Amino acid sequence: MNIAFRDYLALCQQRTEQALLHFIQRQASLPTDPSGADLTSGLYSALNYSLFSGGKRVRPALVYASAAAIEPDGSGPALDCIAASVECLHCYSLVHDDLPAMDDDDLRRGRPTCHKAYDEATAILTGDALQCLAFELIADCREIPADQRITLVKVLASAAGSRGMVGGQFIDLSLQQHQPALELLETMHALKTGALIRAAIAMGAIVAGANDEQKGALDRYGQHIGLAFQVKDDLLDIESSTETLGKRQGSDLANHKMTYPALLGVVGSRDKLAQLLDSARQALQPLGANARQLLQLADYIVNREY
Amino acid sequence: MNIAFRDYLALCQQRTEQALLHFIQRQASLPTDPSGADLTSGLYSALNYSLFSGGKRVRPALVYASAAAIEPDGSGPALDCIAASVECLHCYSLVHDDLPAMDDDDLRRGRPTCHKAYDEATAILTGDALQCLAFELIADCREIPADQRITLVKVLASAAGSRGMVGGQFIDLSLQQHQPALELLETMHALKTGALIRAAIAMGAIVAGANDEQKGALDRYGQHIGLAFQVKDDLLDIESSTETLGKRQGSDLANHKMTYPALLGVVGSRDKLAQLLDSARQALQPLGANARQLLQLADYIVNREY
Repeated sequence: MNIAFRDYLALCQQRTEQALLHFIQRQASLPTDPSGADLTSGLYSALNYSLFSGGKRVRPALVYASAAAIEPDGSGPALDCIAASVECLHCYSLVHDDLPAMDDDDLRRGRPTCHKAYDEATAILTGDALQCLAFELIADCREIPADQRITLVKVLASAAGSRGMVGGQFIDLSLQQHQPALELLETMHALKTGALIRAAIAMGAIVAGANDEQKGALDRYGQHIGLAFQVKDDLLDIESSTETLGKRQGSDLANHKMTYPALLGVVGSRDKLAQLLDSARQALQPLGANARQLLQLADYIVNREY
Repeated sequence: MNIAFRDYLALCQQRTEQALLHFIQRQASLPTDPSGADLTSGLYSALNYSLFSGGKRVRPALVYASAAAIEPDGSGPALDCIAASVECLHCYSLVHDDLPAMDDDDLRRGRPTCHKAYDEATAILTGDALQCLAFELIADCREIPADQRITLVKVLASAAGSRGMVGGQFIDLSLQQHQPALELLETMHALKTGALIRAAIAMGAIVAGANDEQKGALDRYGQHIGLAFQVKDDLLDIESSTETLGKRQGSDLANHKMTYPALLGVVGSRDKLAQLLDSARQALQPLGANARQLLQLADYIVNREY
């Protein structure tokens, strides 16, 4: 990773986290009990715990980089709300996916998962509140015209719901009883991980005022890197360590999850990853030099170590 | 209940359910596996199960009646999306509240709760998808101008999140370890049940183009009937039967829940209910005869048998 891109990623993280912090502090003012004690401090603590846990903030970076590909000088505070919204949605999905009834994971980003650090009820409510907050963040973003905000709500809701992320998680849980098949695996990942990654890219493009042709190019890029993200995740699960990953290494195998290495082997999965990176790069060609950060993000996704 | 009002309630139910059905059918088209089997049919089945379970549809009726109080002849298809959206949000909250880690209820509206009829993971995902759908329904409602739709998203998200319904449920779960106190109980209910009831009323008013004074009157009405709804619920829990209620009678006591009858006694709770009904009626006076259906809804809420 070159220094300019590392700084760019750090700036995206910083802007997103500032927007999240600003918003979450506004949530924390109410209510108190008759003695003045804050009745929901446990909930706010869990919201903070789940939002500020050293996440890579890849989806926010995609929001910024996608907007920059269309309008290099236009990244105002409007993008910060949108980046924060997408990250809220992502964090909610992690909190719920980790629950005992779902993937039953104890470790996430090197720390106990939300239901381990707090309890199951708090984790369910934290996820519920974070999903809600994602939509509130968009609605509150006055820098963006109302008709664009409505389009953003629609794009995020479609990506998050039963035809997107939630549908993908449902298929993932039921696949554990199926015979592995590559097409099925790709359908599942396109929904579970891909839908929100494509939404992040689309949302950046909408705010920057992309035309249909530009949106099409960005969406093709999003499809390839969404899948690449997952192939890399599967490879890391077998090639990395629990310490580096911040989650239990080998958990896919332990959970009998269908993975790319299981279907294609490690070498085949690496080939697949290289092909996807190549396709992502090609998709960006019509956008020229402004797509620089998206190109670097694709490299980062494919070469990251956790 | 007079016949005209019974017909009005039935019409509200019918319009809401048609809008929900229309929307949920659009969700069910994707995706299939390579053999053509629908991979998410279990999820759609659980969504349908949770949405169409003989609910009273009180919140949708409040959307329609609130709009009618402002603009008696103006209840177009725009209101159907909003009524359906509020009901989606409500149904999600029931599915999650019933989970073993939360209230651990097996019975709801005379049938097994979602996690009993399906499983816990499906119930968590069903709730997640329903919350998302509530926001998508608003975004998709092209009959309503974009700036109004954004206000509706904002109102619903504020009512549903950590400063509203989710915050109330969090307090409810933690109150089981507290000494009972009336003020605390009212704070909790104002968030847990009251916030969404007030949002339903506000949303109907927004679509009908209410001015600030009208919105203020409607909100005062909403505060009183929101609380009345809960006092009545608490009374029904000790006075009715499991068969009539469709959920386990006496479950508040069994769950050591703080209730109005526990704090005020049965007679005191009935007095409280009468006072709240009276205050709700008074709040509607500035709206005149157009508030007819809201008045009848207040009577219905206070006199219902389940």
